[in-house]
Amino acid sequence: MNYPNGQRKNISRPKDAKKNTNIFSNRGMTLEEDINETNTFYVKANKAVIYKKPTPVQIVKVNYPKRSAAVITEAYFKQASTTDYNGVYRYRYIDFEAKETKNKTLFPLANIHEHQIDHMKAVVDHGGISFIIIRFAAHDETFFLPAEKLFLHWNVKLNGGKKSIAYETIQEEGYIIPFQYKARIDYLAIIDELYF
Amino acid sequence: MNYPNGQRKNISRPKDAKKNTNIFSNRGMTLEEDINETNTFYVKANKAVIYKKPTPVQIVKVNYPKRSAAVITEAYFKQASTTDYNGVYRYRYIDFEAKETKNKTLFPLANIHEHQIDHMKAVVDHGGISFIIIRFAAHDETFFLPAEKLFLHWNVKLNGGKKSIAYETIQEEGYIIPFQYKARIDYLAIIDELYF
Repeated sequence: MNYPNGQRKNISRPKDAKKNTNIFSNRGMTLEEDINETNTFYVKANKAVIYKKPTPVQIVKVNYPKRSAAVITEAYFKQASTTDYNGVYRYRYIDFEAKETKNKTLFPLANIHEHQIDHMKAVVDHGGISFIIIRFAAHDETFFLPAEKLFLHWNVKLNGGKKSIAYETIQEEGYIIPFQYKARIDYLAIIDELYF
Repeated sequence: MNYPNGQRKNISRPKDAKKNTNIFSNRGMTLEEDINETNTFYVKANKAVIYKKPTPVQIVKVNYPKRSAAVITEAYFKQASTTDYNGVYRYRYIDFEAKETKNKTLFPLANIHEHQIDHMKAVVDHGGISFIIIRFAAHDETFFLPAEKLFLHWNVKLNGGKKSIAYETIQEEGYIIPFQYKARIDYLAIIDELYF
């Protein structure tokens, strides 16, 4: 069909069509990307104020070229001393870590550092809500595990026991996070149920 | 006076003497260093869990040499979208910015970005405690100004009014933070009085 200006009508799918397919599956995004999108949605919807902390970097050399931005020319990744995400929701301090594993049967505790556990314990001591989000990529499932549960498994490891948490245990002790369109990893829904 | 082993008695001041002089003055540390030391003290004393966020950096190039740590060879400073410090104290979310000025008579609001104000407003909306710590280097004085007071001055600026806060106004509306030995910038003392 021709139009007055000689252009054919655009019969391709509407702009959002592709975007809307498979909205409840992962689409190959990393857990970090999913959580960042979720947090952006929470902030825009005025539901919560939660952000990922910047990656800690040890800056060694910086060049200051004339008339342009400073360039960091030598820097190193530093190990994070706390967790990756924090903020505020319904008057409560929120503080959590997120980890993805390709393992089908267990979550290796080597993914977590001792100082992160210490930090999470301090957070809980001071009245914050702390937890870990664990994604089993092979199962395409993402779990919310309260810090208090994580501490128990950590103690087992410290006492020479198992160095991992079985997938079945996380199914039992954790809470599966529903995959939503806007709040892709809607962990606040779990917090609403557990802490309020 | 000689001692049996032939060594003279050490008559110099005890090791800590120098360290202990002027313990209540600034000793040339930046506000950031003072706050970091204070936060470290708070964490060690189990008083609060508050940290500075890492400097946000846009990483462009990374080299992965064999048998040694990854080296970032090109990166740029990014503007912070939130504030510099956050954490938890007495069940409350704490979120603040810190700024030092050499100006003797006023604090220029150009030191703060619009998105930082938006962030602080969202924090207050969700029940967090937000404020700014302002140091007047020339007066060697450090003030605590609640976010709610800052917002009023920001609105004046937005409406075409003054683009700064007078030193005298900060003296009136803010709270001077005592300079302590351990908690160098003991801002939790102010929070205790204002919010609990």
